[in-house]
Amino acid sequence: MGRWMPDAAGRLSRAALELYEERGFEDTMVAEIAERAGLTKRTFFRHFPDKREVLFPLSARIHEVIVDAMAAAPADRSPLAVVMEGYDAAVDMVNKGHAQARRRRAVIMANPELLERQLTKFAATSAAVTEALCERGVAPRVAFLTAAAGAAAWRDARECWIEGPETQDLHALLRESVAELRAAVAAPLVP
Amino acid sequence: MGRWMPDAAGRLSRAALELYEERGFEDTMVAEIAERAGLTKRTFFRHFPDKREVLFPLSARIHEVIVDAMAAAPADRSPLAVVMEGYDAAVDMVNKGHAQARRRRAVIMANPELLERQLTKFAATSAAVTEALCERGVAPRVAFLTAAAGAAAWRDARECWIEGPETQDLHALLRESVAELRAAVAAPLVP
Repeated sequence: MGRWMPDAAGRLSRAALELYEERGFEDTMVAEIAERAGLTKRTFFRHFPDKREVLFPLSARIHEVIVDAMAAAPADRSPLAVVMEGYDAAVDMVNKGHAQARRRRAVIMANPELLERQLTKFAATSAAVTEALCERGVAPRVAFLTAAAGAAAWRDARECWIEGPETQDLHALLRESVAELRAAVAAPLVP
Repeated sequence: MGRWMPDAAGRLSRAALELYEERGFEDTMVAEIAERAGLTKRTFFRHFPDKREVLFPLSARIHEVIVDAMAAAPADRSPLAVVMEGYDAAVDMVNKGHAQARRRRAVIMANPELLERQLTKFAATSAAVTEALCERGVAPRVAFLTAAAGAAAWRDARECWIEGPETQDLHALLRESVAELRAAVAAPLVP
């Protein structure tokens, strides 16, 4: 990316969101997204492989932030604590732009292809978290289950945050979700 | 489905699996799957919307079995216990055909499109489980988190079952996965 097109990925992503809202995901072409962003189709494909991916511009960076925070966690932390440190570090990347997050969610919910891509993103994050736990010496099954638990808390907290007022603290919501999850999973299996 | 084509869906699914193994998912056409199964392309599309879906012939039935078992669970059961009764009921549908499950998994792992569809199937099951809990009066957030916990245990148990010897009991593996999950989620968050 040259200096003459600062934040091309962000501009493409915002243009795509606008167009998907205006005329729907199906009826929007990559060339139109590029035009709306004041960029070329070639630039679009330098940043994103397709018109689904353009709605998830931060996903690779979010993985990095989570995995880095997990690697920096002290050795005496439990696997769950390490995972939550990872997601806590990601909060500051997503907690700006409440209105945009809400609009994005509405567009994703309306299109099965976008929903499918979002699931792939969540799964990729979980796989990265599982791997980061394994690298700390956590057994693979425990790593998978802990990563799944963390992902569930993260999705629950994000959902509450998007649905609620902008003033909410996503860090606090995340702690709340973990507490709810712990209670739910500790419930008796036999009456 | 007429009497002249018993188990058309199953035949199409087995034919698709063979062809995906032989020449890859990308290079297999719907017409070839139908031909291998001794059926027509029209019959294929009566059962499946596309060549991804043909690898998940039981998914709709699995949802039904899970949701029915949850509805039949006594009122005094905890949300987690209800979810596990649902998955336990699904065990008998998947624990036949260990060799086929293993082959299917190898094909799915090798193709991003199939992996994406599988994630959609897991998510659809989780959504059905969440809804079934809400219908029992469980609060939406608790329902979502409990369904996510159950799905994690189910995926973990299935993975162990597929990777291990055919003689393993999937019911027992599921109980083991829930126990592992409970321990992982109960871990201290501060040292």
